[in-house]
Amino acid sequence: MQLTFLGTSSGAPTRQRNVSATAIQPERGRQWVLVDCGEATQHQLLRTRLSPLQLQAVLITHVHGDHCYGLPGLLASCQLNGRTAPLTLVGPAAVWRYLQAVIEHTELRIDYPLEFVEVSRTLELERGGFSITATELSHRTESWAYRLQEAHVPVRLDTERLQTERVMPSPLYGRLQQGEHVTLPDGRELDGREYCIASHPARAVVVAGDNDQPELLGEACEGVQLLVHEATYTEEVLQQVGPEPQHSCAAQVARFAEARAIPALLLTHFSPRYLLKPRRPRDLSIELLRAEAAHHYSGTLYLAQDFETYGIARNGEVSLLSEQARDQRSNHTVSNRE
Amino acid sequence: MQLTFLGTSSGAPTRQRNVSATAIQPERGRQWVLVDCGEATQHQLLRTRLSPLQLQAVLITHVHGDHCYGLPGLLASCQLNGRTAPLTLVGPAAVWRYLQAVIEHTELRIDYPLEFVEVSRTLELERGGFSITATELSHRTESWAYRLQEAHVPVRLDTERLQTERVMPSPLYGRLQQGEHVTLPDGRELDGREYCIASHPARAVVVAGDNDQPELLGEACEGVQLLVHEATYTEEVLQQVGPEPQHSCAAQVARFAEARAIPALLLTHFSPRYLLKPRRPRDLSIELLRAEAAHHYSGTLYLAQDFETYGIARNGEVSLLSEQARDQRSNHTVSNRE
Repeated sequence: MQLTFLGTSSGAPTRQRNVSATAIQPERGRQWVLVDCGEATQHQLLRTRLSPLQLQAVLITHVHGDHCYGLPGLLASCQLNGRTAPLTLVGPAAVWRYLQAVIEHTELRIDYPLEFVEVSRTLELERGGFSITATELSHRTESWAYRLQEAHVPVRLDTERLQTERVMPSPLYGRLQQGEHVTLPDGRELDGREYCIASHPARAVVVAGDNDQPELLGEACEGVQLLVHEATYTEEVLQQVGPEPQHSCAAQVARFAEARAIPALLLTHFSPRYLLKPRRPRDLSIELLRAEAAHHYSGTLYLAQDFETYGIARNGEVSLLSEQARDQRSNHTVSNRE
Repeated sequence: MQLTFLGTSSGAPTRQRNVSATAIQPERGRQWVLVDCGEATQHQLLRTRLSPLQLQAVLITHVHGDHCYGLPGLLASCQLNGRTAPLTLVGPAAVWRYLQAVIEHTELRIDYPLEFVEVSRTLELERGGFSITATELSHRTESWAYRLQEAHVPVRLDTERLQTERVMPSPLYGRLQQGEHVTLPDGRELDGREYCIASHPARAVVVAGDNDQPELLGEACEGVQLLVHEATYTEEVLQQVGPEPQHSCAAQVARFAEARAIPALLLTHFSPRYLLKPRRPRDLSIELLRAEAAHHYSGTLYLAQDFETYGIARNGEVSLLSEQARDQRSNHTVSNRE
């Protein structure tokens, strides 16, 4: 299971960071799901091996431009590239109104089926290999977090139990692993499903939209390996800016993740004031955010950068993948256009 | 006077070409005007020395997404970067309806004055040092060409005439050059404006939107040094595609420019099927478009690439500027964000 960050800046793009968009891929297959779609997400995709034709669903956290202004262009390019497969759009009702207005006023033609699902507390959707649910957040407009859980965990046969019950290896093992009912030579009847166990716990990640109350995610984060959350400022800058924009600081998110013992925390959506390579004495470094979060959080901590891909291994471990590992993962995907 | 191409692809971006946007700067000052604003125009600007805060007007040729989906993001970033100066938007009424709908549905806040001027045959506007007029084109939606003419040509004093009239050099020359009325010591009265002559003819360029009838631009192109026009395909591909999309092929535009003796022709808006560096035998090269145009046109011909800057010299000559020349031109502009 992999997450690729296509944009990690809040509000406006910088030369190093685009605005929000995160691609999530299951372990197998070429399908993927996109959370948020800031302007130029389709441009970022041209520099990855993710194919827009294999995109299964776009989940929009909220209707602010830096999270959805790339949607019309991405949908238009899918049309130009001959997409016929259905696409699901999930988000607040305002996102659908926005998209419908753009389609109408700009004569945008979309012939493939585009299904809209309004996000709600009762959302339950399976797309791209994930079971998707949602949690409402606190922001100056309706904003949501999406929880994506692996929908199909491979199973293996519990051979220890079988041998304890004196069912010895035979071609019947194969049928049991398929979940079939089997009659043994001694007359016993076995239900294969009772002898199949998940090869690993289902992996899950929460990807949150803009939010000034991380604690709203307590329930959603139960059992997840990873939380992806905005950390727009440090606590000091947040106090200067004031509460009006309703963003989180790094300390706030880190304290929440620590209290809930979330194994890994990935921060993103950084104010453009934080630079990767500060040049002048008054420049603020992105390392300020890392230091603040690390002070409050003892788990695995990352600050996302554009085009980084993170993996969640079957054992639940989250790590930054090397470019080579990413390419091995996706060496069967089609190459992009010029 | 300079033109910088920020996007030269039609329909969808490629790795080498963004969708339509062209920046036009007068000879002096940091102000500039933008024709079209495809998605990610603000991202392209981050890689130039053009400042969005110095942008005076955005002229949209037509409402199709590859010409205007970058508008909301650019306006939003101007707001985030503290713009207070007014900005003029010119285009078909549909562009304003589109923008108003996006502002409403996405809670986009713009505090600086944003003025909309609906394009028409009687458009006469002065912005960013240019006198701007418009000509309607032929496309599958309302589409326009803009003519930008240098509004303020520097004047010099006609010293030959003054000396012929026995007005000898003195501090009065300075007042005459300011266009003042001056009384000479011998009692003669001179009107300075009559002794001022333009240092060069006013330069002018026509930048056209999507169009399948270049001949509509006959009148607009009178006296221009340069026509910038789409050449989406070769004649052969146009015949395969059919007339429905209502685009021009290279031959069509070239024949028009030749018939009207337009000194320089800059082609842009190329179908993504034409590659800068063809790799496989079946790949189509962008050179096919150049060859087709050159066959019909004997003037100065260029095919635009993203980030190229072209200059129109005072003598009317059009040339591709080296990066050094561009930087000299703009070494007083503010540097962009990170």
